[in-house]
Amino acid sequence: MPIREFELIRWIRRAARRGPGVVVGIGDDCAVLNPGAGQLLAKSDAIVAGIDFEPDAPPRQVGLKAANVNFSDIASMGGRPRFLLATLCLPPHLPPGWAKRAISGILAGCRAAGASLVGGDLSATSGPATIAVTALGTAARPVLRSGARPGDAIGVTGPCGGSILGRHLTFRPRIAEGLKLARVATAMIDVSDGLSADLAHVLEESGVGAQLESALVPIHRDARRLARKSGHSALSHALTDGEDFELLFTCRPGNFPRGARRFGTVVRGSGMRLDGKRLEARGYEHVLG
Amino acid sequence: MPIREFELIRWIRRAARRGPGVVVGIGDDCAVLNPGAGQLLAKSDAIVAGIDFEPDAPPRQVGLKAANVNFSDIASMGGRPRFLLATLCLPPHLPPGWAKRAISGILAGCRAAGASLVGGDLSATSGPATIAVTALGTAARPVLRSGARPGDAIGVTGPCGGSILGRHLTFRPRIAEGLKLARVATAMIDVSDGLSADLAHVLEESGVGAQLESALVPIHRDARRLARKSGHSALSHALTDGEDFELLFTCRPGNFPRGARRFGTVVRGSGMRLDGKRLEARGYEHVLG
Repeated sequence: MPIREFELIRWIRRAARRGPGVVVGIGDDCAVLNPGAGQLLAKSDAIVAGIDFEPDAPPRQVGLKAANVNFSDIASMGGRPRFLLATLCLPPHLPPGWAKRAISGILAGCRAAGASLVGGDLSATSGPATIAVTALGTAARPVLRSGARPGDAIGVTGPCGGSILGRHLTFRPRIAEGLKLARVATAMIDVSDGLSADLAHVLEESGVGAQLESALVPIHRDARRLARKSGHSALSHALTDGEDFELLFTCRPGNFPRGARRFGTVVRGSGMRLDGKRLEARGYEHVLG
Repeated sequence: MPIREFELIRWIRRAARRGPGVVVGIGDDCAVLNPGAGQLLAKSDAIVAGIDFEPDAPPRQVGLKAANVNFSDIASMGGRPRFLLATLCLPPHLPPGWAKRAISGILAGCRAAGASLVGGDLSATSGPATIAVTALGTAARPVLRSGARPGDAIGVTGPCGGSILGRHLTFRPRIAEGLKLARVATAMIDVSDGLSADLAHVLEESGVGAQLESALVPIHRDARRLARKSGHSALSHALTDGEDFELLFTCRPGNFPRGARRFGTVVRGSGMRLDGKRLEARGYEHVLG
């Protein structure tokens, strides 16, 4: 059942409650915001049907993922999510209610993160359903990718691999963990491209290398389940699958936080070694037209 | 010729210069920004091939439009554009260099507006080329849609209609005009849906009506050219075509600025009258799947 743009905007306007710092929310040409103290963080990330989610995935989970992939990036800087803008490009012949359920998922993600939906855009498209989100946050001291130093411990907030079995839609962004880690982390990133690929980003930006121990890489049970049928090892899934949305960080060994999993050490030089052998970063990369 | 995501990101990172307030630009999980004084403005708007531009439109103009439609909304609040994030969803088999030329257009729009490209996302898509942009700006005193009062003059910064003949891609957002109008305007909006539809938005938000004079509606020469073949009047094109990206505003008559075109007066009540006859708002509205 087709839905008209302005009707949907009115529904969203009622459904989106205004949190702290929202001077003017949905309904004017721009949102007017008062982020308050700290530096402003901004991140844009889009998800596309057929690439980032199955076209028949529950729309509420799709909306939740669209919001949470962006909140995860705010978390990876040690920031607090504050505001979100969401652009939905919607093909004809979506199931009835798809758009409202996707937006309900976005709003659920905002509520859980303490953020407010303050704007966005609705468009028709002849292509796959696409949700492009921008999240804004604040951080007193943003943690960059570039601060890792030789001797730092390398840790991650949870086990990785096999997220394609469902967690890539339903994960919880590590916001509280990021706020705590911001006190001690020298560098931080969220695991989206894959544990080894994202570690490679940190190493490259920091101008350092890493030694990793395979026995210490935290492997998710989904990685083990997937390994039974994929022909790859559970370790390989943990290192390369991506979309785990755990936080990967470095810190001085004496500051290593309880609950996180240490699986390596930053060293001088460049590149990664796993049990002494060179490890190539492998992760998802789009090939663009 | 396919281009790999990380190669394109490296190119963008070199091409995007960091302006004032950019603490960390492209290359980390989030941009880190210091917007400085004023309230923060945020706007997201997407353009889709086949809807907002012809698939064979020059990609540089497409990128320019993607940036400028958002800057126009910042201008319509009396704000100053500061930062931009751009998400490109790119189908296979685009002409070689399409993505770089589109991004060059985005960067040209940023330079002209005094804003910095600070982030975004690149994704493949099986659908039409889509550019989703978020612009951030600042304003000392944002001008809302809701401030029009009976007795206010209704004006617009330039003639409208017929933008489909080319101006919808190449227009200049009225940033300097918006900054000046912010001192006197009681309400303001940019003309995107159409002069009458956008005026209707202002009237509805302000809880007032309007009397318009057809002889005073500023008609663009493109509207006259289009009227020769469309079967509609030039006045009708001026009132309903949209994508003019002029600023439509209300202000006390004594404050009406030189150079702007007055074509009506705010009255008590609701709705619009043109030469005394009821005028229905007509403008573009997406029908969503």
